[in-house]
Amino acid sequence: MAVPCTIVGFGAVGKLLYRLVKERALPVEQPRVFARTERTEVLDGDEIQVGTVSEEAFPEGGVALFAGSEGVGNVSEQWGRVAAQRGCTVIDNSSTFRMEPDVPLVVPEVNPHALGPDTRLIANPNCSTIQMVVAIAPIHRAAGIERIVVSTYQSTSGAGGYAAEIMWDEARAVLDGKPGKHDDSPFAQQIAFNCVPLIGGPDQTGYTSEERKMIHETRKILGDDSIGVSATTVRVGVEVGHAECVNLQLKQPLSAQEARELLDRAPGVVVLDDWAAPERTPTPLDSAGRDDVLVGRLREDESVEFGLDMWVVADNLRKGAATNAVQIAEALFSKGHLGA
Amino acid sequence: MAVPCTIVGFGAVGKLLYRLVKERALPVEQPRVFARTERTEVLDGDEIQVGTVSEEAFPEGGVALFAGSEGVGNVSEQWGRVAAQRGCTVIDNSSTFRMEPDVPLVVPEVNPHALGPDTRLIANPNCSTIQMVVAIAPIHRAAGIERIVVSTYQSTSGAGGYAAEIMWDEARAVLDGKPGKHDDSPFAQQIAFNCVPLIGGPDQTGYTSEERKMIHETRKILGDDSIGVSATTVRVGVEVGHAECVNLQLKQPLSAQEARELLDRAPGVVVLDDWAAPERTPTPLDSAGRDDVLVGRLREDESVEFGLDMWVVADNLRKGAATNAVQIAEALFSKGHLGA
Repeated sequence: MAVPCTIVGFGAVGKLLYRLVKERALPVEQPRVFARTERTEVLDGDEIQVGTVSEEAFPEGGVALFAGSEGVGNVSEQWGRVAAQRGCTVIDNSSTFRMEPDVPLVVPEVNPHALGPDTRLIANPNCSTIQMVVAIAPIHRAAGIERIVVSTYQSTSGAGGYAAEIMWDEARAVLDGKPGKHDDSPFAQQIAFNCVPLIGGPDQTGYTSEERKMIHETRKILGDDSIGVSATTVRVGVEVGHAECVNLQLKQPLSAQEARELLDRAPGVVVLDDWAAPERTPTPLDSAGRDDVLVGRLREDESVEFGLDMWVVADNLRKGAATNAVQIAEALFSKGHLGA
Repeated sequence: MAVPCTIVGFGAVGKLLYRLVKERALPVEQPRVFARTERTEVLDGDEIQVGTVSEEAFPEGGVALFAGSEGVGNVSEQWGRVAAQRGCTVIDNSSTFRMEPDVPLVVPEVNPHALGPDTRLIANPNCSTIQMVVAIAPIHRAAGIERIVVSTYQSTSGAGGYAAEIMWDEARAVLDGKPGKHDDSPFAQQIAFNCVPLIGGPDQTGYTSEERKMIHETRKILGDDSIGVSATTVRVGVEVGHAECVNLQLKQPLSAQEARELLDRAPGVVVLDDWAAPERTPTPLDSAGRDDVLVGRLREDESVEFGLDMWVVADNLRKGAATNAVQIAEALFSKGHLGA
């Protein structure tokens, strides 16, 4: 029997959740959509009544996909635990619950075992973390990861659909010979044709909240707090698709060729690493609209014992957010924890 | 007495060399300019006769700044040693001589001692290497660098003025809703609104020629072949200004604050690292048109003993090429090796 499905938040990620629930034929009823304001939206020909959240949005036995914005009026904080307590399974895309000890933080290819039969509140990790752990988990299992140094190239859509529009406005201004920086930009500086190495604010150590997410979430998902992680997160003038330079120091030897073979067999990963075909090296543009994590530039790093370098790209709205959330729901269905 | 000055190559870097020689009042005669084809160019109101190279372009006691393109008909290969043998001091911007044992590879803030009284051929390092070594040399002297992991965000002008134009053409096409990738692009993939993790071709280890330059040139300039370096070089959709995430593993402890104070006093470096003023964090756009190397995001990396993270930005045409070359000439004058 199909279970009730609720989508909370109807920005870029909320809309993609709606599409993916249908595209991937999740065994649920027609999704009901809730957001900050009541309205009617049309998406792919469907006329969608958007309501405001109340308890009845979260029926027992249902599944609720949360994709609200964070900050003031954080809907996850307000309704996440309430919905779960009512017996509705919540998959939350915000950072609200990710580091709570009782809330599993799940990437289905990596730690589906974290989903128990009574799990009612599940956190969807940060976009940058998801794509990295999909690519490194098989390597961690094979050779053990001692330390990760990661630098990101994150697209503007990661800051919301509005932020991506700001980039296009800035680009048009620059091409018209006008000042680039948009007055209403969420970014500290002009993002079109530029790189801004600040995502979230820095804490007293100088690391930003986005960097801390990558550090802590990676350890939680891989279930190994001994892994050293240093991250620098950088926003670039790209609309969709995050890229990452990932440098790994392993506990045991693993050649680039062995890593390539491991990842070729890994779920959710596509290796594009033919040195004779540079035009196939994955870029953010190639990842946009795809559900896979693309891996290229695999090579042994001679500067350290058992070092490995790789380049990891994924669609931050899909695998980095909506696809992963829907895949968590799929895992719950296939385990019989939903809809049974 | 002013010495004769020759500029070979009159693309983006050659033109900037001409400007900087005047701007910085290098004690030389009016520069004579040579390139592949004879022509007249107008730059800042000067009418410049561009000739084709012959031996007489390189008089004894003169200084020749080479900024020709590499590849077929490499003018540095053809004329660099010839000019030096004639007693003209050559400062060459290409990669032709950088790793030759008898040719010093010089960044004046870092290894001016490599310039001897009889040095007639000097190599200007790769753009990405120059800005990194300016920022890390003071740290190396204070605490010793064990290992560097660097990821770059390199602008299109690093591939020549033509490549930068290609990016603008692609950007216009994308904003007009047309396919982005330019047919005549030097890049493997669309570079406007994208990131392409390939600069130069990969060798049998998977590292590209640009990455190898960063590895080998860094060791040569710092005079320490024991430093481990892993580099991933990435082209981004930015016109001018290269950025780098630099992760250092030191031999001795050095706090972020100590590093900040060291770099604040270091020549050629401007530290912009006020966490309360994110809008001042340096970006490629901020670096364009400046001669300094800008450093931000200094913080201790807890994932390793004595770890340090930093973000380094510079104008790749200025400090990464023309400014550094003119500074080498200035160092030769101030040492009395030129014009004495």
